[in-house]
Amino acid sequence: MRFAKGHGTGNDFLILPDPDDSLGLSPELVRSLCDRRTGVGADGILRAVRITAHHAPAPGLAVADWFMDYRNADGSIAEMCGNGLRVFARYLLAHGLADGPAFVVATRAGLRQVFQEASGEITVDMGAPLLLGHSAARVGGVECHGLAVSLGNPHLACVVDVPVAGFDLSAPPVVDPARFPDGVNVEVVRVCGDRHLEMRVYERGSGATLSCGTGAVAAAVAAAREQVNGTAADSERSGLAGRWTVDVPGGRLVVTLGETTTLLTGPAVIVAVGDLDQAWLSDLALGAVSGIA
Amino acid sequence: MRFAKGHGTGNDFLILPDPDDSLGLSPELVRSLCDRRTGVGADGILRAVRITAHHAPAPGLAVADWFMDYRNADGSIAEMCGNGLRVFARYLLAHGLADGPAFVVATRAGLRQVFQEASGEITVDMGAPLLLGHSAARVGGVECHGLAVSLGNPHLACVVDVPVAGFDLSAPPVVDPARFPDGVNVEVVRVCGDRHLEMRVYERGSGATLSCGTGAVAAAVAAAREQVNGTAADSERSGLAGRWTVDVPGGRLVVTLGETTTLLTGPAVIVAVGDLDQAWLSDLALGAVSGIA
Repeated sequence: MRFAKGHGTGNDFLILPDPDDSLGLSPELVRSLCDRRTGVGADGILRAVRITAHHAPAPGLAVADWFMDYRNADGSIAEMCGNGLRVFARYLLAHGLADGPAFVVATRAGLRQVFQEASGEITVDMGAPLLLGHSAARVGGVECHGLAVSLGNPHLACVVDVPVAGFDLSAPPVVDPARFPDGVNVEVVRVCGDRHLEMRVYERGSGATLSCGTGAVAAAVAAAREQVNGTAADSERSGLAGRWTVDVPGGRLVVTLGETTTLLTGPAVIVAVGDLDQAWLSDLALGAVSGIA
Repeated sequence: MRFAKGHGTGNDFLILPDPDDSLGLSPELVRSLCDRRTGVGADGILRAVRITAHHAPAPGLAVADWFMDYRNADGSIAEMCGNGLRVFARYLLAHGLADGPAFVVATRAGLRQVFQEASGEITVDMGAPLLLGHSAARVGGVECHGLAVSLGNPHLACVVDVPVAGFDLSAPPVVDPARFPDGVNVEVVRVCGDRHLEMRVYERGSGATLSCGTGAVAAAVAAAREQVNGTAADSERSGLAGRWTVDVPGGRLVVTLGETTTLLTGPAVIVAVGDLDQAWLSDLALGAVSGIA
């Protein structure tokens, strides 16, 4: 079984090329592969499946050549992952499986446009954010007010006026359980320059991570919205458009807020390619590899 | 650049085959490779260098065919690593670079005998422990008495009478700084059956880890010594010999205490082999890969 390992601003992924959709990818296998000690190690798996004629929504319709089957490290299925899609696109480009500078990838969240920038960075269309009003979180004992934003997954982006490095993200922020019954990703965001943010994130289920693509978009939306409020704009949407630099612990992302959609731009790197050991895979199937309780 | 990834009871390593000793392995490259998000990820690197005639200590003398150049994930050089040597041996056997069931590997700590067990597990000769008297550690606020043991690296193995899962190893145990000026690895060890131990370890410089080969040997030595004391043996060494099962968070090790040396036995697994991405390596050389501060 072939694999590649790559990352986007410190979110790392294993890419499994599976053009014929023949890999049986069980949750157990995903967990074994993503285990950072006893497997290869990653935040998630990106399985690359070629889309054939019978997958196409209608004959003659231009569709994606590839489907990104994304799995979280815990084996669960997720609809989309912004940094994952950027790494997926890099893999397709590096292996001649897609032609730049623009192509479309199919995900469980629908078709997503991808762009290769002249700089080599990868941009993905993240769709329109849904603004869901204000709420609050207690982050490391500090009360923070935030804007609830959905990008397919829920965020509470809290714009603060102190350096984000000072927040204790070792434990989950406390949020209103009635408002977020399925949990929420919490960002602390500080404006540190002209349309320039620094952000740290606590991801539900994962804890403090080095980067979060949807979180960066939510952070830019919340910061843009605060500026609009500051200038007493009278329209819900006016003034949100613009390009924001978002520094995360794993590097630098650029978020472009448009009127109908958003873009996420940043580096995407392939580190290595290889083959999984056949004896190891066989032992996995027998449940014999790991003595870990 | 070729690599393999493997682990022994959850201690994981990248093996870099370098028969001609031509890889310039800088501390920066080691850190980049071992980074679990932006690299491949591992506890350390095992570079495999073929020993040629001019390395041999004397003509005609039987010596090792391979030198294990071990580096910690932080880029520093270490003399030996028990679990690392077991994984190194597995790699040599799997790639036809050594013949079982017994061969010798050269390390910075000297020549080390390796055995392939009929079960497939790998045993390495860990040398003689040095018993250095009693001391104490405060582990998660709990005062523990232990035996100081050197296996090339220093250990304080504390035999306790409560389950080791209950100890808080999130912070370094507090030890006597005059006694351990260079720090010490601290084990909490409980006898849970006949010559059967459970152990957790706090490794200096690494924190709580899934396994520690020298720590398992130190734990067996401390537990054996307590039994000897319990029976009022009159010799320093008598009664220490025997075979001990040591359960660590990453799996199960077996430690054999002899009169003049000790053996460490356990599973060693190769998970994958591959090639590092040439563009990534080139970018590393330019210092351009990672935006991480």
